Amino acid sequence: MHRSRLSNFILDCKVDDIDAAATFWSRALGRAVVPPTPESGNYRELTSSKEEPMLLLQQVTHDSRIHLDIETDNLDAEVKRLEALGAKRIAFVKERWWVLEAPSGHRFCVVQPQRGALDSHATAWDDAATKR
Amino acid sequence: MHRSRLSNFILDCKVDDIDAAATFWSRALGRAVVPPTPESGNYRELTSSKEEPMLLLQQVTHDSRIHLDIETDNLDAEVKRLEALGAKRIAFVKERWWVLEAPSGHRFCVVQPQRGALDSHATAWDDAATKR
Repeated sequence: MHRSRLSNFILDCKVDDIDAAATFWSRALGRAVVPPTPESGNYRELTSSKEEPMLLLQQVTHDSRIHLDIETDNLDAEVKRLEALGAKRIAFVKERWWVLEAPSGHRFCVVQPQRGALDSHATAWDDAATKR
Repeated sequence: MHRSRLSNFILDCKVDDIDAAATFWSRALGRAVVPPTPESGNYRELTSSKEEPMLLLQQVTHDSRIHLDIETDNLDAEVKRLEALGAKRIAFVKERWWVLEAPSGHRFCVVQPQRGALDSHATAWDDAATKR
């Protein structure tokens, strides 16, 4: 048995200034920017409630887009489950997260838990069922 | 004074079968598909709580991507507010919603209220401030 849920939407921004992009989206959506720390790197976060997916921005070099992440307490089991549904493995990045491609053509990531316990909106999956 | 908020994320799906795409994402995210009605057209919805942005899928002919919508009780005032922040008008579609482009390169829509009152996570904007 493992758990997973929709973790966040990330606005991948091909911009010179990720703080300017965060300011635009903060004002556009009426969501404060979470003050960045040295660990924020090329990421910024807009405030969201515990009930919502997180709202992130990331400075990137590819074209701007939005992608979503699924967070899980068992990366291997979750990737196998998604493969069984028709997703394809694209890359295992920094030995921390998987990039997959959905049958709908969207690339998304499967990541470690991003904000503690996987409680609201999480689903418990029967790993034995995936193996059958 | 007008109000707006993040309304939804839409997975634009370049697929032959939007129901198959909805089934994949339903199982991937652990969110039931809201049973489609004749009015659903090329849209499908995954369940979300009132506190969250809605999760929609749309069958499209352009490449698959994800975009977000902002809902508002005053389309004109909201588009002017977003223009003042640096967004550009792209198109007014079916005389119902605006497509804008953010300074970060993302296209997004400004739409009429999608699910009744703009209560949780909405912001009230002072239109006089935008005009100054």
